[in-house]
Amino acid sequence: MINLGMASLRLCAGLVGRRSGFCARSLRTITGMTVSQIDEEVAKLLELKTQLGGDEGRHQFTLKTAKGTRDYNPKQMAIREKVFNTIISCFKRHGAENIDTPVFELKETLTGKYGEDSKYDLTVSFKPTVLDPTPSQVPFARYLAMNKVTNIKRYHIAKVYRRDNPAMTRGRYREFYQCDFDIAGQYDPMIPDAECLKIVHEILSELELGDFRIKVNDRRILDGMFAVCGVPDDKFRTICSTVDKLDKMSWEDVRSEMVKEKGLSEEAADQIGQYVSLQGGMDLAERLLQDAKMSQSKQACAGLTDMKQLFSYLQLFQVTDKVVFDLSLARGLDYYTGVIYEAILTQTGPVPVAATQNGAGEKAEEGVSVGSVAGGGRYDGLVGMFDPKGRKVPCVGVSIGIERVFSIMEQKAEASAEKVRTTETQVMVASAQKNLLEERLRLTAELWNAGIKAEVMYKKNPKLLSQLQHCEDSGIPLVAIIGEQELKDGVVKLRTVHSREEIDVSRAELVEEIKRRTSDV
Amino acid sequence: MINLGMASLRLCAGLVGRRSGFCARSLRTITGMTVSQIDEEVAKLLELKTQLGGDEGRHQFTLKTAKGTRDYNPKQMAIREKVFNTIISCFKRHGAENIDTPVFELKETLTGKYGEDSKYDLTVSFKPTVLDPTPSQVPFARYLAMNKVTNIKRYHIAKVYRRDNPAMTRGRYREFYQCDFDIAGQYDPMIPDAECLKIVHEILSELELGDFRIKVNDRRILDGMFAVCGVPDDKFRTICSTVDKLDKMSWEDVRSEMVKEKGLSEEAADQIGQYVSLQGGMDLAERLLQDAKMSQSKQACAGLTDMKQLFSYLQLFQVTDKVVFDLSLARGLDYYTGVIYEAILTQTGPVPVAATQNGAGEKAEEGVSVGSVAGGGRYDGLVGMFDPKGRKVPCVGVSIGIERVFSIMEQKAEASAEKVRTTETQVMVASAQKNLLEERLRLTAELWNAGIKAEVMYKKNPKLLSQLQHCEDSGIPLVAIIGEQELKDGVVKLRTVHSREEIDVSRAELVEEIKRRTSDV
Repeated sequence: MINLGMASLRLCAGLVGRRSGFCARSLRTITGMTVSQIDEEVAKLLELKTQLGGDEGRHQFTLKTAKGTRDYNPKQMAIREKVFNTIISCFKRHGAENIDTPVFELKETLTGKYGEDSKYDLTVSFKPTVLDPTPSQVPFARYLAMNKVTNIKRYHIAKVYRRDNPAMTRGRYREFYQCDFDIAGQYDPMIPDAECLKIVHEILSELELGDFRIKVNDRRILDGMFAVCGVPDDKFRTICSTVDKLDKMSWEDVRSEMVKEKGLSEEAADQIGQYVSLQGGMDLAERLLQDAKMSQSKQACAGLTDMKQLFSYLQLFQVTDKVVFDLSLARGLDYYTGVIYEAILTQTGPVPVAATQNGAGEKAEEGVSVGSVAGGGRYDGLVGMFDPKGRKVPCVGVSIGIERVFSIMEQKAEASAEKVRTTETQVMVASAQKNLLEERLRLTAELWNAGIKAEVMYKKNPKLLSQLQHCEDSGIPLVAIIGEQELKDGVVKLRTVHSREEIDVSRAELVEEIKRRTSDV
Repeated sequence: MINLGMASLRLCAGLVGRRSGFCARSLRTITGMTVSQIDEEVAKLLELKTQLGGDEGRHQFTLKTAKGTRDYNPKQMAIREKVFNTIISCFKRHGAENIDTPVFELKETLTGKYGEDSKYDLTVSFKPTVLDPTPSQVPFARYLAMNKVTNIKRYHIAKVYRRDNPAMTRGRYREFYQCDFDIAGQYDPMIPDAECLKIVHEILSELELGDFRIKVNDRRILDGMFAVCGVPDDKFRTICSTVDKLDKMSWEDVRSEMVKEKGLSEEAADQIGQYVSLQGGMDLAERLLQDAKMSQSKQACAGLTDMKQLFSYLQLFQVTDKVVFDLSLARGLDYYTGVIYEAILTQTGPVPVAATQNGAGEKAEEGVSVGSVAGGGRYDGLVGMFDPKGRKVPCVGVSIGIERVFSIMEQKAEASAEKVRTTETQVMVASAQKNLLEERLRLTAELWNAGIKAEVMYKKNPKLLSQLQHCEDSGIPLVAIIGEQELKDGVVKLRTVHSREEIDVSRAELVEEIKRRTSDV
């Protein structure tokens, strides 16, 4: 069954790559079909393909991974593990639970076609980027509604998959990790929201990715601003998506797009221009609450009052050094209902470029700064959409752009002189003499049984030099050397690899001595 | 792109479920097509399906996960994490590196259609069970050949997927974890093989799943045995698969299948019967080396000599209490070339039943004991199959039946009075008085910044009782209570939840006191 499972995934991969070859003629010949008839046809075609044995032409095959996928070697995995550990430690420090939802969801879940309220079409409102937290929020909302969970603080880190995409050359992969943290529940305003920002601050600080900034805005402030600037209701979304491009386009270009492409009046555009250039903190929220135009919008006032509250909590959390209230931040997801935020790396230079090349620069072509490493916001309506009775569960969350983080960490490791260890081995059990394999194995087992991370060469008579070389290569700090004399004396020669210092340690004290010398590992 | 990715996986899931509805008529109408034409047609049909908006008939939708998938709640995830930690710690103790390969591989990789040597067809030789290590060995072998890795000790734990299957009601899932450990490289005989068995012994002991046994045999001994018993060469595989059923069928039934269904002579069957009833250790290997018939087979002698060697290493590793040389063990994979093994839980009772119900009893219907929790063996030919020049890299490895382990652990947790904690929170920051939200947040941030796992209620004025109740419910051991008086005195009232004992701790010493009191967490 497993091979078929792989085959089905592989077929999928093959199919999605051919979307661009879609031909109108053939579509016409089959448009009289129902969906279930289509499904049947598809099943038959796939079956036939299997029978034909796949692609024609048995050309010489080059070993490779499937398109859009890649292997991770031990060094890359060690870096990933370190990143995971940092992030998960932070989530756990904040009392988060871990849940897991399947990698695929029913179409009804993804399209949000439930009950009366079908105003959301999630397949449309998804922005095509991994940094938006959306995709993982949908299964999460489905989970909450289905299991009638009304409050939870959880994280979820998992591989996800996407269809083929046009930016493969720029390093977009079909298989990648998503990392999400969300707080669901009916609470007093802005407390969980502030904790999400605190978490982003902690994670980005601990990962040492360089200086960063967390931009904050509020959907209600954006909507209120559009309203008071004279943007027609039906243009809110499209104007919002143009504003979202301000981090990589000049105001002139953004203005031009709003006016020429989207038909906004010049006056409205210029009024928007005055607001979206504003950045600040609690002071800016206070000022806008007094602003003659803004204060006309109830929505904007609600958002601004909450923004003040948010900043007061952020002050308590001591994270205002990195957080900026920025009216140009306009994340593109329909279902955000309150605070939105996005963290960007402000350090220029090779890092963002590498991140893009290595596959995490997802948002570059879609309008968000290449330095974006986390984002999220409040989405109070999503769970209610899935609940049969429309019961709402307010949610706020954040996604960490973990693939980009990996890329940056990999690049830092490349640039650094420090070697990345791919094992945690504390000691190598070695011998300079022949015929001591059994003694080496016996000692190794003793160490394993005592919880010591130990390696031994799988050779009857390895050279001492090659045993020491392996320690050098893989960063093993200690060598436990035995010979006839040591065995007779009941000792082990414990060698420190970097200093080449050797001391005799009694067999009984060996475990404790190794633990003592590697306690910082 | 992500929504499309999900959609494509979902579509796959939908498609594979419809295989049975395959219709010969329509196949006929399209058999003139090439594979690429089929691909185009499939793409068009899928596109059309998307345009039609999915399944007809907007019947009331019930919230559910896709067929064959499930959610994992925090309690299940906590159990999984514990299992992962135990297993990964063991792998790391043995110096293993971590690698990751994509969840899908090119068809050429799965079918093994490389170069001249196409004698393997992996899609056929895969046994449909997660407990066989095969599926993950194929990407591993491809990885080694592609990256020209000639030696590595690695583990790989990942979710994998399979197509629909007939045993869904018995709890077979489409999405599940695989867990593999392998040692690749040219080494002296049986040393890495012995380490694999040592690892199985360590993991099963530490997981405390109950008593277990590790059966060991060797492909060469099986083949030699079949030869000296008079089984025709072309019947080795099929007779082997019948022998493999001995752990759930009586010898009479196995004999009958060999003779009546597979056309083996009664004499050959009876001779096999004498051998496959044998179990022992090094002594049995020695005895069979002297056996008049067995000793005629060079293959069998090579296997038996290695078996003796293996047991000598197992003695050094002190694991012979659980390991049995069992001539009836016949794992069904074509590419095993030497030692094979399988670990079974010997404890009877509710555990294996529950394991089957909960989705890990994969092998029940395919001929391996329901108690099977690990298996593997030596496969020296697989990498060479992928290498353009046929360079061989000997490999030996083991798969842990991690889904079954999860099921057993979940059931044990259910049966136990001990509560499974789903967070690691050390302290709850609480107050009995009103208007202290800001002080609670300030203290919580202090604790987070000091690395303490802390929670605080997201309410302006929560009741002390509900704060304490949350600690009881989620197993938080300590409460840091502040009130006006404590703030004035510069102290915190530290309450131990289980004993209800309270002491005043100075704010400066709070972090150390919390660490001291939760150092066993």
